[in-house]
Amino acid sequence: MPNNRSFEEEKLEKMSRRDEILDAAGELFSRRGFHATSMRDLARAVNLQGGSLYAHIDSKEELLFELVNRAADEFLYNAEAIPAHISPKERLERLIRGHLEVIVRELDYATVFFHEWKFLNPELQSRIKARRDDYETHFRKTIEAGVKEGQFQVEDVRLATLFVLSALNWTYHWYRPHGKLTLESLSKHYCTLVFKTLGAC
Amino acid sequence: MPNNRSFEEEKLEKMSRRDEILDAAGELFSRRGFHATSMRDLARAVNLQGGSLYAHIDSKEELLFELVNRAADEFLYNAEAIPAHISPKERLERLIRGHLEVIVRELDYATVFFHEWKFLNPELQSRIKARRDDYETHFRKTIEAGVKEGQFQVEDVRLATLFVLSALNWTYHWYRPHGKLTLESLSKHYCTLVFKTLGAC
Repeated sequence: MPNNRSFEEEKLEKMSRRDEILDAAGELFSRRGFHATSMRDLARAVNLQGGSLYAHIDSKEELLFELVNRAADEFLYNAEAIPAHISPKERLERLIRGHLEVIVRELDYATVFFHEWKFLNPELQSRIKARRDDYETHFRKTIEAGVKEGQFQVEDVRLATLFVLSALNWTYHWYRPHGKLTLESLSKHYCTLVFKTLGAC
Repeated sequence: MPNNRSFEEEKLEKMSRRDEILDAAGELFSRRGFHATSMRDLARAVNLQGGSLYAHIDSKEELLFELVNRAADEFLYNAEAIPAHISPKERLERLIRGHLEVIVRELDYATVFFHEWKFLNPELQSRIKARRDDYETHFRKTIEAGVKEGQFQVEDVRLATLFVLSALNWTYHWYRPHGKLTLESLSKHYCTLVFKTLGAC
């Protein structure tokens, strides 16, 4: 069935082309910002004519949402993969490792997630907001459980959660993927600091 | 000397007009972003014709630099006002209080400082970068001194400084000036968390 095969091939090519466009958008949005990137810049980055880009995507906004949403997928995937039976301290260690892993390995996506999401329209923003809240809840519930089980000593769980997530989030501002600091070393140091922050014993 | 007086008056009026434009730019740049704000938006926000705006400022870039630089002034002013003779722990407490004060009281300026500074041209960016480095040094030297005097227990001063500043910086993302959390309460809680992070005794 040569016709069917070529249809499949065409679909696969379109999909990989779309991933390529997404990666280019991630790089441009994270470096220059969403508003300073034009469709023309994007087309140039993937060697397409401006017009042909519209065969693959509808708008710049659609790309922004997909980038932010994929980053949310990654963060949540890591958090949801953590087994429920391990201790709060071990859970938090995996949450920290997973969080830093997404930032370090997907720095462009993470930057767009943290830095450009406010340029989504209100409806899309509220969809992402709900996923962010879900994600934050993993951290808060883990810290709460740790306090309940006597592993953490914390005065105000909400503020402590904010403090810890803030320290982790900011990593995208300064982390250099080709620098000396590996994900392993960063995670180890940051786990130690977070545990001290939470008075872990 | 009526002519001189009216010249002075005109100068004063221009100065306050400029402050008004800066405040409006701070609000617009922090909410929408630098690139999504046009000179027309700015003129509208201060009830001026687009053309008249140019009597007060040369360009949007000039406003961005002035906003970022004023925020740097505020951060550095607080840090430099701390007396040298007090202990590292007391110094750090004042640094944290001063840092959060700028974010809480000048949320728009702080947001532009942290969020939009990357849209400055390379030369202006490096001037701001130097001031940021100066500011970060106040924190690092204070933590270093605390370690030396046995007030703090820290494995890696550089990473601990980054961790602490990250946690403080991110405040501009979530702090609501008209919410329940006062600067005093936030500072108190965050000082406690930072001291725990640094193993303060």
